[in-house]
Amino acid sequence: MTSYRKLESLFARLSHLDQATGFLHWDMSAVMPEGGAASRGEQLATLKSLSHELLTAPATKDWLDVAEGEDLDHWQRANLSEMRRDWLHASAVPGPLVEELSKACSACEMIWRQARPASDFAQVAEPLGQVLALTRQVAEIKSQALGLSPYDALLDQYEPGGRSAEIEILFADLGAFLPGFLQDVLSRQGPAPALPQGPFPVAKQKALGLALMRNMGFDFAHGRLDESLHPFCGGTPDDVRITTRYDEQNFLPALFGVIHETGHALYEQGLPAEWRHQPVGRARGMSLHESQSLLMEMQACRSRGFFRHLAPLLAGEFGGAGWDGDDLYAATMRVRPDFIRVDADEVTYPAHVILRFRLEKALIAGDLDLAGLPSAWNQAMRDLLGITPPDDRRGCLQDIHWFDGAFGYFPTYSLGAMTAAQLFDAAGKDIPSLAEHIEAGRFAPLLSWLRRKVHGQASLLSSGELLRQATGKRLDAEIFKAHLRRRYLN
Amino acid sequence: MTSYRKLESLFARLSHLDQATGFLHWDMSAVMPEGGAASRGEQLATLKSLSHELLTAPATKDWLDVAEGEDLDHWQRANLSEMRRDWLHASAVPGPLVEELSKACSACEMIWRQARPASDFAQVAEPLGQVLALTRQVAEIKSQALGLSPYDALLDQYEPGGRSAEIEILFADLGAFLPGFLQDVLSRQGPAPALPQGPFPVAKQKALGLALMRNMGFDFAHGRLDESLHPFCGGTPDDVRITTRYDEQNFLPALFGVIHETGHALYEQGLPAEWRHQPVGRARGMSLHESQSLLMEMQACRSRGFFRHLAPLLAGEFGGAGWDGDDLYAATMRVRPDFIRVDADEVTYPAHVILRFRLEKALIAGDLDLAGLPSAWNQAMRDLLGITPPDDRRGCLQDIHWFDGAFGYFPTYSLGAMTAAQLFDAAGKDIPSLAEHIEAGRFAPLLSWLRRKVHGQASLLSSGELLRQATGKRLDAEIFKAHLRRRYLN
Repeated sequence: MTSYRKLESLFARLSHLDQATGFLHWDMSAVMPEGGAASRGEQLATLKSLSHELLTAPATKDWLDVAEGEDLDHWQRANLSEMRRDWLHASAVPGPLVEELSKACSACEMIWRQARPASDFAQVAEPLGQVLALTRQVAEIKSQALGLSPYDALLDQYEPGGRSAEIEILFADLGAFLPGFLQDVLSRQGPAPALPQGPFPVAKQKALGLALMRNMGFDFAHGRLDESLHPFCGGTPDDVRITTRYDEQNFLPALFGVIHETGHALYEQGLPAEWRHQPVGRARGMSLHESQSLLMEMQACRSRGFFRHLAPLLAGEFGGAGWDGDDLYAATMRVRPDFIRVDADEVTYPAHVILRFRLEKALIAGDLDLAGLPSAWNQAMRDLLGITPPDDRRGCLQDIHWFDGAFGYFPTYSLGAMTAAQLFDAAGKDIPSLAEHIEAGRFAPLLSWLRRKVHGQASLLSSGELLRQATGKRLDAEIFKAHLRRRYLN
Repeated sequence: MTSYRKLESLFARLSHLDQATGFLHWDMSAVMPEGGAASRGEQLATLKSLSHELLTAPATKDWLDVAEGEDLDHWQRANLSEMRRDWLHASAVPGPLVEELSKACSACEMIWRQARPASDFAQVAEPLGQVLALTRQVAEIKSQALGLSPYDALLDQYEPGGRSAEIEILFADLGAFLPGFLQDVLSRQGPAPALPQGPFPVAKQKALGLALMRNMGFDFAHGRLDESLHPFCGGTPDDVRITTRYDEQNFLPALFGVIHETGHALYEQGLPAEWRHQPVGRARGMSLHESQSLLMEMQACRSRGFFRHLAPLLAGEFGGAGWDGDDLYAATMRVRPDFIRVDADEVTYPAHVILRFRLEKALIAGDLDLAGLPSAWNQAMRDLLGITPPDDRRGCLQDIHWFDGAFGYFPTYSLGAMTAAQLFDAAGKDIPSLAEHIEAGRFAPLLSWLRRKVHGQASLLSSGELLRQATGKRLDAEIFKAHLRRRYLN
């Protein structure tokens, strides 16, 4: 057997383990009773350590080296390159450091869960300092192994090939545009229209969500919709598990949550079945994944046309009068600078991300002390959104990411939003009457385009190359800005 | 670290893997969409092979041998003995033979799924021959490794320490008793009373089942009730997943299914938490597990007292008139010799098991050819129950067990029934007014007795020794026979 074939077998096993882990995570969030948590933690830790042992066994490096010289086709070579990336990330950092960081994250996250509601940054400063110090060690080691800057070595874990130099240019552009644009939007924004009042029974919200999923192309032979506290898309490409959360007073969050997660799910379901269980067959990084959810949620469905399609469906499901598509659209499009990222609208969201990107880069580079984090945060909020968080609960304590060791993740949210705008713009040029299709609730032409241009490519190309082939240009902020101008100033 | 400690670490990891497998199985039966099946099969196969590789790694045997000479307490020695049993079963059979048998079972089971409804034994005779030939090879190899007869080596997989010589004595006793007793019961049986008619909505059946589970002591912080085609008890001791199946025309199967599986679940939930993830902390074999479900279902709840407790609950849930405890009891206690084991009543059930035990012993010993199986089956039905199956669908094709390679499993059903009778009899002597407690729906005194005598012992004792300590004697058929006489002839 060639070394390459041995690697294919190894990575298939790793994929099976990883999929098992995925279902245990879904189960933990969607159905597990609380008493199962401790054992579940042990099950997950064992699967993770077995996976790490398999990947970093001494033979793997030899196989990777020998396979480079073997006769491989284009697809196999792309697969081999993904394998080496996985191996580099896994083998670079010594086991004890990985474990120390993992424990520091668990400890810090636990304290953060108390410090956040108490708005007490001092309480969590020391454990966060531990996490940051260890993360900087990991970043330094991975920086050597990957030939990247420390921050980019972290970013590469979530966004393969992502580079902060390029992100800085994009975010500088967007950061310069947003404050003035926001003032424009706010100055023109009229009063919010009145909408039909609830309660909106969960069973009806669920029926509506399922109907939309079906309509969007979700394959229920290969997936499910369930409930969880924090909506997510989990499972595997053959069995995608999405979740949402229902509020009987407001049907919009669950509905748009379902649409968002269905965007993620369609990506997974559209990965080539014949590439299953190989690294090149996986989805291509976090920003492209987020682009698929935001393309459905923000580009296709937060549109006047889609709300006109939706209004009679809502009237049919919930009954009562006053279901007007234009009113629904206007109510959903409200812009308001506020402190919390996850509640932010489409216009102010990038400001939250730019702030975090700048601060985490400074933290990793050692240019910002943790002691200075709260005030640096508040200053950036003033600069970008013109508001000052009244406390750290609504400031630097709001997101779990850093307290759980996820540095380098935040930029993928806004890269995803920009990528979504650029892909949807290109789809609109390729598909005659795309807007009319959406207004009629016909998603098939859009899905078919995405299958061809994005989903079916899996990880064969870099994110940048995929986008260039799909849209004719590299990622730039102009299309996103044009989208915002069109939607919020017209 | 001592070799014994190394073994404890190894077996903890194996337990985590095994628990992960358990949840993937539950998921497959309770929630997985059909399109997830192929990937799920691969996930399970990978977990199983990793577990086998870990257990049979060369170091394990050395650790087992060295640990024998280490300073161990009573509990550790019992744990070590369970570890060696696991290792012997796993390491005895060469990997290629395990795999060949596994594939033969999958192939045979698939053909059986068509042959059964077609009642076509000839169609499945050859693949079953393959399964049998390979199983006999495995039995021969395990016979050498364990110092047991080939059949007992198979039996030992399900019933640690179980010996066919003892089962033969018990089954000879029961087999001699049953035909005459059955005639007595049938000659005295009056007409069946009329019961309230359905439909009985699933939601109400479920509410009733959940209320009963709670009442019986099921801990919902450590478990759930769901639905599946074939009811079962899965998950782990910290998170027990039981399932049932609802029929809107008849509430009894789902209700008694829930009671049965709750009996299994209470055993799992009662295993000592501090022994978790070690072999000695597991439930003690199949017959004792079945005894816990049958003790709840057949001994405690298929009683006149429990039906008197149940009648007003049924009336409250389903409404309508005619809910009489004595009528319900009489209707549920009907006896009728029939062809299908899983539909059999308490009196005729052992005949189905005795028949299978005798035939599978003969098959493994080579005393019965597969070609002669259908006629041998039908002859045994005539001898034991006085009826002749009109076709093989209702004869030797009805159960999945042999077609899936499970030889040596069947006797545990009736050992479980006898063990249940003996334990319940002893509990009745130890607990003042046990019958009154059951009639009042108070399960706490019974559960507390089971926790002490059975659940809390885990695998510290052999099944036989556990029963002797709990009841003062070894398993004998007299108590079960007395139970049947009392219930069906009085």
